Amino acid sequence: MKKLYLAFYILLSGLLVPSISYAAADAHGELGGILFSLFCLVFSAQVLGWLASRLGQPRVIGQVLAGVLVGPSLLGFVHVNLTLQALAEFGAIFLMFAVGLENRLRDLLAVGKEAVIVAILGISLPMLGGYCFGFFHDLSQIQSIFIGTAMVATSVGITAQVLNDLGVINSKYARIILGAAVIDDILGLAILGVVSGMASGEEVSAIGVATTLGISLGFVFAVLLVGVPLIRRIQSHLNPQKISGGFGLIISLSLGFAALSGVVGLAPIIGAFLIGMVLAEVSDNYDFQDKVHALESFLAPVFFAMVGVQLPLALLADSEVLWNGAVLTIIAILGKWLGGLAIAPQQGFEVANKVGIGMVPRGEVGLIVVGIGLSTQLIDNKLFAEIVVMIIATTVFAPVVLRMIIKPVVAPRLKEADALGTSDGKGI
Amino acid sequence: MKKLYLAFYILLSGLLVPSISYAAADAHGELGGILFSLFCLVFSAQVLGWLASRLGQPRVIGQVLAGVLVGPSLLGFVHVNLTLQALAEFGAIFLMFAVGLENRLRDLLAVGKEAVIVAILGISLPMLGGYCFGFFHDLSQIQSIFIGTAMVATSVGITAQVLNDLGVINSKYARIILGAAVIDDILGLAILGVVSGMASGEEVSAIGVATTLGISLGFVFAVLLVGVPLIRRIQSHLNPQKISGGFGLIISLSLGFAALSGVVGLAPIIGAFLIGMVLAEVSDNYDFQDKVHALESFLAPVFFAMVGVQLPLALLADSEVLWNGAVLTIIAILGKWLGGLAIAPQQGFEVANKVGIGMVPRGEVGLIVVGIGLSTQLIDNKLFAEIVVMIIATTVFAPVVLRMIIKPVVAPRLKEADALGTSDGKGI
Repeated sequence: MKKLYLAFYILLSGLLVPSISYAAADAHGELGGILFSLFCLVFSAQVLGWLASRLGQPRVIGQVLAGVLVGPSLLGFVHVNLTLQALAEFGAIFLMFAVGLENRLRDLLAVGKEAVIVAILGISLPMLGGYCFGFFHDLSQIQSIFIGTAMVATSVGITAQVLNDLGVINSKYARIILGAAVIDDILGLAILGVVSGMASGEEVSAIGVATTLGISLGFVFAVLLVGVPLIRRIQSHLNPQKISGGFGLIISLSLGFAALSGVVGLAPIIGAFLIGMVLAEVSDNYDFQDKVHALESFLAPVFFAMVGVQLPLALLADSEVLWNGAVLTIIAILGKWLGGLAIAPQQGFEVANKVGIGMVPRGEVGLIVVGIGLSTQLIDNKLFAEIVVMIIATTVFAPVVLRMIIKPVVAPRLKEADALGTSDGKGI
Repeated sequence: MKKLYLAFYILLSGLLVPSISYAAADAHGELGGILFSLFCLVFSAQVLGWLASRLGQPRVIGQVLAGVLVGPSLLGFVHVNLTLQALAEFGAIFLMFAVGLENRLRDLLAVGKEAVIVAILGISLPMLGGYCFGFFHDLSQIQSIFIGTAMVATSVGITAQVLNDLGVINSKYARIILGAAVIDDILGLAILGVVSGMASGEEVSAIGVATTLGISLGFVFAVLLVGVPLIRRIQSHLNPQKISGGFGLIISLSLGFAALSGVVGLAPIIGAFLIGMVLAEVSDNYDFQDKVHALESFLAPVFFAMVGVQLPLALLADSEVLWNGAVLTIIAILGKWLGGLAIAPQQGFEVANKVGIGMVPRGEVGLIVVGIGLSTQLIDNKLFAEIVVMIIATTVFAPVVLRMIIKPVVAPRLKEADALGTSDGKGI
């Protein structure tokens, strides 16, 4: 306990000293403010993340709480702005890029059928549950559909971080989760397109929906089916010695494909994950993985802390919000979990259980959807808060339960595991 | 030559493909735009930096040109905005943090006398030269003083990058340059405070100037004189194994001290450099240097490219602007070079010559000063362009000449050089 007091002391003094002097300085530019906010996010996320892991909890929970602590609800050091949102998004991009680097296409294809089942059920069941919630609360048809849509998205970043920490990111169930999350994002995108079109009173055409679906599916297949053979072919022409200086090129690849992914309408993290998977084919020959992890270990906590910054604590004081939020949470968890359990007959309960739990977090994807709903006045403040409760609860639920049901594997990376010959099925 | 064509081809196709699809996509959010801009900056800076090094030129020049290429003057993919400026500043911060990690206080103190001489002469001579330029062009007293102020600041980041590339960042002359740059920044800050106070018609008090100077000097001494003994004392309590996960803490230290440095009115890069120097005392025991270099190799090119993005090419078509810019450039180079040569009697011509050239770049510090001048309407567009010509010319001049007069050392880092026992005076 002495160490915990020490950690709290470090956190407080570390945050207070610069803050006081910062407040005391009469003039500071916008850039200075951003620098200070980023410092608060990185520092508090590190300390609370470390504290959480000391208490046997997942680091991400500490990092989300760090955001709550320094955000507008409590200390008020950090407010949402475009630059911090961009930094948080870069964190998510590099996180998923690093996850992609540890997954190969052939491994993901091997679990393709399971991923499709999990994704489709994991979308249908929460959609149905959310619709019913709205129906029983006398909400309009479009509002009920919107609640369902907010329950569809899987925020795979949080699960990926936990599985990475546990050293099981290349296990079979991790691959099913990742594959299902990609499919989820593609279908979820199409649904969001339809719903926001309906909300704004537009005519929703089957051709429009099919085009959106076709473009995003085409993007995924183009990257994988062109990229993987291409990189294998040019691999023999690349000299590892010369490439070692090309870390910036690797980074620009991940940024470029994240941007492209955004262009076709998918989440940028999907593009980063896909190009990471392409580079995974040759990553054994080059030494960029550690450097990508360095970037990720700095920026991914910013992403999780920003989730906390965006949590409106005050809304949680309303008992009706909490009650409805709890109902939505149960629907959200059951929907994804039952979707995962559907593969139990083929894969066994243990794998199916982990997949189901791993699909639960709604995280930032849910926050984005609900943000659209609020800004288009499709939902009011109360419904917004209820859905946010569900998003936060599912986001916190998954890491806690995953750590209870998964035994950590010591070797933290695929490469090391491969070297030991234990790559397949470890941790399952 | 075949390879150069190939590189151009890669650059063009790499930039055009996403750009066209980006332009074709009818809807993309602000975050998507930032992602795309960052991709353009990182990618073009990597390719043109590589091209420059193939042509025997310093990488930074290629990176600045990359910014010109993708910036509003040519392709128009990247426009100045707060987020990109913040990312560029993070690049400069991590660059100077990495430089600090390779310098120890005792090494810098050993060249303290020389650094003070170089800094004071390197401020006085360009100040005087700039004032005379204004006087002979019939500008007002305050405008003449302002031109002098814009010529004072040393942008040590560019020199540090070149010296780092050449493997001589821990040589004696590099230390003199770094020490002089810190002093430059402190005195330059005081001068800028006085001049902008005079420009806005405020009463400039000796007490105000002395307070500014005292606070920034106090900050520098406090960080170094408290930090260095403190980290040595707690070093024995830190377990390298446990700290290896604390890379985020290291990063938050650099961000925190950069922010603090901004609070006391110094450039954030000075704080990052100082805390890097404190951590240099223990960096041999920990493995964070490679990770810091990974961050720096991604973000520092963004900083240099953003210098290019801010260059208004159109203004360079005016022959009077070019002529006056050339005169200012000669004054700027001579002023810093003669300041460096003042230490020739003690240190020999070779060291003094390298120090003088190394102090020449005005870079982003000059751009900040001139930006203040333009926004307060102290200078007009033409004078602005002339000073910008001087800033760009000095910024390009120094790397080119430094590479002509310094023989590269193979070992890229202090640690490796130490291991070989060649740390002292190498490359001199």
